[in-house]
Amino acid sequence: MLAGRGRFLADRAAGAHHAVFVRSSEAHARIHHIDTAAAARMLGVLGVYTAADLGLTGASIPALTTPNPEFTAATNCFLADQRLPVLAADTVHYIGQPIAVLVAEDRYRAEDALEAVAIDYAPLPAVTDPVAALGPDSPVLFGHLGGNEAARLEFSFGAPEHAFAGAEHVVEGTYRMNRHGAIPLEGRGVRAAFDAQRQRVELWTSTQIPHTVRDAICAVTGWTPQDITVAVPDVGGGFGTKANVYAEEIALAVLARHTGVPVIWVEDRQEHLIASAQARDQVHHTRMALDADGHILAWEDSFIADIGAGSLWVAGIVANTAIHLLGPYRVPAAHITGRAALTNKTLTAQYRGAGRPEATFALERTLDAAARKIGLSTEEIRRRNLLTAADLPYSRPLPYRDGVPISFDGGDYRACLDSVSNLLPRNEIERCAAEHPDHLIGYGLSSYLEATGRGPHETARIRLLSDGGFEVTAGAAAAGQGHETVFAQVAAEALGVPMECVRYVPADTERLPEGVGTFASRSAILAGSAVHEAAGKLVDAAMEHVRRLLGVDGPIDYAHGVFRAGRRMLSWLEIARARAVGGDAESGAALDVTAVFRVETVTWTMGVHAAIVGVHRRTGLVKVLRYAVSHEGGREINPRIVEGQIVGGVAQGLGGALFEQWRYSDAGQPLSTTFAAYHLPLSTDVPRVAVEHLHVDTPVNPIGVRGAGESGTIAVYAAVAGAVDDALCGAVHVDSTPIRPGDLCRALAGAAS
Amino acid sequence: MLAGRGRFLADRAAGAHHAVFVRSSEAHARIHHIDTAAAARMLGVLGVYTAADLGLTGASIPALTTPNPEFTAATNCFLADQRLPVLAADTVHYIGQPIAVLVAEDRYRAEDALEAVAIDYAPLPAVTDPVAALGPDSPVLFGHLGGNEAARLEFSFGAPEHAFAGAEHVVEGTYRMNRHGAIPLEGRGVRAAFDAQRQRVELWTSTQIPHTVRDAICAVTGWTPQDITVAVPDVGGGFGTKANVYAEEIALAVLARHTGVPVIWVEDRQEHLIASAQARDQVHHTRMALDADGHILAWEDSFIADIGAGSLWVAGIVANTAIHLLGPYRVPAAHITGRAALTNKTLTAQYRGAGRPEATFALERTLDAAARKIGLSTEEIRRRNLLTAADLPYSRPLPYRDGVPISFDGGDYRACLDSVSNLLPRNEIERCAAEHPDHLIGYGLSSYLEATGRGPHETARIRLLSDGGFEVTAGAAAAGQGHETVFAQVAAEALGVPMECVRYVPADTERLPEGVGTFASRSAILAGSAVHEAAGKLVDAAMEHVRRLLGVDGPIDYAHGVFRAGRRMLSWLEIARARAVGGDAESGAALDVTAVFRVETVTWTMGVHAAIVGVHRRTGLVKVLRYAVSHEGGREINPRIVEGQIVGGVAQGLGGALFEQWRYSDAGQPLSTTFAAYHLPLSTDVPRVAVEHLHVDTPVNPIGVRGAGESGTIAVYAAVAGAVDDALCGAVHVDSTPIRPGDLCRALAGAAS
Repeated sequence: MLAGRGRFLADRAAGAHHAVFVRSSEAHARIHHIDTAAAARMLGVLGVYTAADLGLTGASIPALTTPNPEFTAATNCFLADQRLPVLAADTVHYIGQPIAVLVAEDRYRAEDALEAVAIDYAPLPAVTDPVAALGPDSPVLFGHLGGNEAARLEFSFGAPEHAFAGAEHVVEGTYRMNRHGAIPLEGRGVRAAFDAQRQRVELWTSTQIPHTVRDAICAVTGWTPQDITVAVPDVGGGFGTKANVYAEEIALAVLARHTGVPVIWVEDRQEHLIASAQARDQVHHTRMALDADGHILAWEDSFIADIGAGSLWVAGIVANTAIHLLGPYRVPAAHITGRAALTNKTLTAQYRGAGRPEATFALERTLDAAARKIGLSTEEIRRRNLLTAADLPYSRPLPYRDGVPISFDGGDYRACLDSVSNLLPRNEIERCAAEHPDHLIGYGLSSYLEATGRGPHETARIRLLSDGGFEVTAGAAAAGQGHETVFAQVAAEALGVPMECVRYVPADTERLPEGVGTFASRSAILAGSAVHEAAGKLVDAAMEHVRRLLGVDGPIDYAHGVFRAGRRMLSWLEIARARAVGGDAESGAALDVTAVFRVETVTWTMGVHAAIVGVHRRTGLVKVLRYAVSHEGGREINPRIVEGQIVGGVAQGLGGALFEQWRYSDAGQPLSTTFAAYHLPLSTDVPRVAVEHLHVDTPVNPIGVRGAGESGTIAVYAAVAGAVDDALCGAVHVDSTPIRPGDLCRALAGAAS
Repeated sequence: MLAGRGRFLADRAAGAHHAVFVRSSEAHARIHHIDTAAAARMLGVLGVYTAADLGLTGASIPALTTPNPEFTAATNCFLADQRLPVLAADTVHYIGQPIAVLVAEDRYRAEDALEAVAIDYAPLPAVTDPVAALGPDSPVLFGHLGGNEAARLEFSFGAPEHAFAGAEHVVEGTYRMNRHGAIPLEGRGVRAAFDAQRQRVELWTSTQIPHTVRDAICAVTGWTPQDITVAVPDVGGGFGTKANVYAEEIALAVLARHTGVPVIWVEDRQEHLIASAQARDQVHHTRMALDADGHILAWEDSFIADIGAGSLWVAGIVANTAIHLLGPYRVPAAHITGRAALTNKTLTAQYRGAGRPEATFALERTLDAAARKIGLSTEEIRRRNLLTAADLPYSRPLPYRDGVPISFDGGDYRACLDSVSNLLPRNEIERCAAEHPDHLIGYGLSSYLEATGRGPHETARIRLLSDGGFEVTAGAAAAGQGHETVFAQVAAEALGVPMECVRYVPADTERLPEGVGTFASRSAILAGSAVHEAAGKLVDAAMEHVRRLLGVDGPIDYAHGVFRAGRRMLSWLEIARARAVGGDAESGAALDVTAVFRVETVTWTMGVHAAIVGVHRRTGLVKVLRYAVSHEGGREINPRIVEGQIVGGVAQGLGGALFEQWRYSDAGQPLSTTFAAYHLPLSTDVPRVAVEHLHVDTPVNPIGVRGAGESGTIAVYAAVAGAVDDALCGAVHVDSTPIRPGDLCRALAGAAS
């Protein structure tokens, strides 16, 4: 990939017709009529296909996550019956929603013809504010639901009202994390072709979850898993926005079979900014009760997530937010309420953290507000509340989403705070001030706690090759994280052979018919463990052959790639040769095993971020000058890849903290449709990140790994916000992201006046 | 395929650069200099690559067949050390020989640039006559050999000289079958791309022998089988010319890795007629001794095969010819001598029959000559000499090519003669004469005997799919023969399940790492039996799971897709579900077995062809009016496919008997480079063919099959020649093919004068 030899979805355009999607120009409207005739007649156009043309009228995409019954019961969780259409037929709910797909010989002709498709809409009132959407006066967006609430949960423990009533200090606040998202370097794309020889559709898609895409296509079309294979090319980043099933994937699969010609759709950047799944967009009302020493007595958070016109992941986002609101602190009482609102904005999915950054921002900002009110440093209030080795493992009176009671399996969360304070001591402010005399300098901290390695399972397959090496594949698809390296390492270690003996090949649904995918900081834990177990199974499966080849009944040892019975030995190469045509154990069942690794529940990764920022005295622009992360991870399979994940996560978090926002007009018109309006961090916006990895192995999986894919991002928002507060010496309390220089200018002006 | 939905090699051009080959314009010359600079500079040209540029200097293609030591000893077989270069570097030996490969963005630019490649040759004397090539005055074409003899064998049994000395009748003759070949509808083609993700070359080639191509590429390059995968698209006919390894396949594999870009080469028709492997081209000197009643006493044949500038199959062609010269007759004594001569004509390989048609033509024509001399009908002389049920099985004092003593395992060869005489009685001549008053009408017969199902082995793989169905693949590649149907039938029958449950997928060297290929009438026998055995192994492999799932220790029966232990039953679908994630027998070793089927030796297919032809009284043009085939085959897996093979074989045989010839000038210039000069039979040249299949199962393989892929072709030449003789009432004795109307005109004129 680094050498430019990656082969991405768009590199597979050769030989395919090009599809472009007819998308809604209205945020909320009824469709009276779709006139595709003029476009269909244009030169080079193969056809224009509506839902009706493809037999997709009424078809909707199945939800991707549903909480466990215990969790549902414990949180009074309600989920509305969302029905996300593949192609809109009678009503559109957001600008950019796919209505039809146009296929032409090349992209140029396709784009030209797109303009000739005429749609007659009857506009309906649009709703873009989630609070209003849940109010009594809002138009109802989906008639079958009767309201705009897509999900709701509520739970409490430890008598919070009683604690609030008797508390020395109570702080309240409202915190908003605006809508932003992953923006991978590579947009989405799908290529589908019908293989007449094998009578099946072969779909390539830039996804994190090929098996889930396959299952969704089968659910919508009624095809069996033998009727379609889904494969993943090199993927230029996913971060959650590609851990989703999209209308385009289903439409192209159907189209390939319908037309018989190979079809490719490659998203352009504007399309990505309008029509790919977005994220965050939560508002939290918080209240915290503390004693005179700053110990948390009770914690209350009531949040609303704006999921736009729908989300296949709504249950996950709401549950994740609620669970992570409890943080790595001693919280004796809490009351959490969460709701998801449907609006006329783009669909949402997961994005690196998936509710955790929003929860962390609300909790950590409230803690900073409390520290200020009580007169403690932001470090000291955390020190007093963080769980320590004496507390851990620490149970919450709540089941996790899988129904298993929550129990933090960490080492010593306060040690992470000590570590980050050493990595980036507060007095580093002085050096920064000297270096940046035109900036006000501040120091901020944020802890986070993250459930990683979500189950229920993942699959991996290992087979012995004819050269005595091994081919490994796993159900978790890669999007540039280095699965090829990491899973080869795991397999090589488990088999006791050099890494050169192992070839990792990306999963597709033919090679590995069952798999879950890559999201929720789960690949190393779940797929890594499945690879580890598959290696063990392969050794077991080989034993029978070894016994026969050595003519031995007694015990056989295996180590370092060699089977031993007394003084007799056999290598994998010898086994492979014996199994080849003409060998002593010719033919028969393949030395090819699949393992399913299951977890009972998640494991927990904790960390603390520290940031030093400079706020420009005149412009209010925030510059991050120093950054440090200490995190309590598990065993590192490959430390460079873990560090890359952390640093990349910080960079993405800085984007959300300082720059990125999808803005909409009140009428639902997206306003951030180019990189001139949607600001990404530049490389110059990201400082060097110091990382310290505190090893706390976990017994939850056989390779002792904790997830790290999202943890770099989660705490960034609150750490930067805290540093800005500090820089402005109390003239501001940042309560929303992205942090707006204009607000800081006004605060600076107010402080100076 | 019939619906036009086949996807052939040329249909995979999308995304690839186009390769064209710089080919020799000289039949025999030294190369002084190759100037590629001007061509390489031309617009759109990626490069021009000589042997040196690709690291192929001195590289030669490994031979594809070597006889067994017993056969070698019994026949005093000698094989020269042929070295067929991949790309010619210092000497060229035939016009069309590849010297370099030019790669450009498209075919047009490539063809244009090709003309700018300048090669400086020093011409050498060319040899085009095989008899001269073996004479003392011939230039030696390959210095390291010291002569032009590529192969030689000789054997005799039963004191033939003694028999000749005392015989009542001796007939002698010289019979020549001129050079012609397969001419599949689709020419050859290769596409190669380097997959950086998997670090291997992926090669598609229109071949009958993907595994052999893979092995040859590995042998030339030093790559391992993991470095390359060879796959076969739909193939538009092979007939032996694609059962060869070609320089183009090796060059493209190397080129893909060398350049990193996908490259395709699609042979054009002229190129095919000049540079694809040719066949036949044998001259036989025969002598037969008979008693007064026409019983064969001794048989002598001395033949020379002109293999052009080389043949990877020379050992097979010479041995096949020699073995099949013995025919289905009682031959008490014989003396056979065969030689292969190197000349400056195009390379040769196998073509449907591969020595058998040449041998059959020599033997059957000699028998017809003897019949005339003795005054017997052509039917009667055969009736007196054919092996009958009393004779069979019948041993020859000679090992087959695999070293196993030859023993014809037939039923009653004379019954085939009776059958064909019923199918097409001689008195049908009268009706033909009435229908075609402008033609002289004649009746001809030819027997043949064919060794089919050559070993040593073939592979097949069956795996259980998640829907309870099966995926089947076999090492024998298809070229349009219906493997998808036949092997699915075999698997379904062996498993006792409906055919819809079985999906046959074409083999590639990744899916099935070992295989032999499709040639020598071997696929149904070898691959069919391997599929049959794999089905049995799959049932065995499933037993362990069934035992576990049913909780049973005792015996388990399997029939009709259901496992039974007493009253407990389990279907394949239930096993598949149990093995899925969450099932009772989740994960573990795959239900995926490979079987290797071996044969000790060949089985024998015998038949008799009868033809009625009309010779036009003025033009001498031969029209085949009636045609019948009775053959002693084994069990027919699919009778329609067997009949299709026979009828197609007859059509190809008629082409060789009447029309097809590659002519060369004395200087080695090919003269038959378009279809205007190389005449193929038209559909109007092929009459309806009556076929009778006399079932004689063979115990050699578990499915009782005898090969039939080549048998339709073998006897056509002699049957048509005999009918022409008969039509002209002795004015001619056809001794070469294609039969030339001019010769017949002259004979007619002579007979009339």
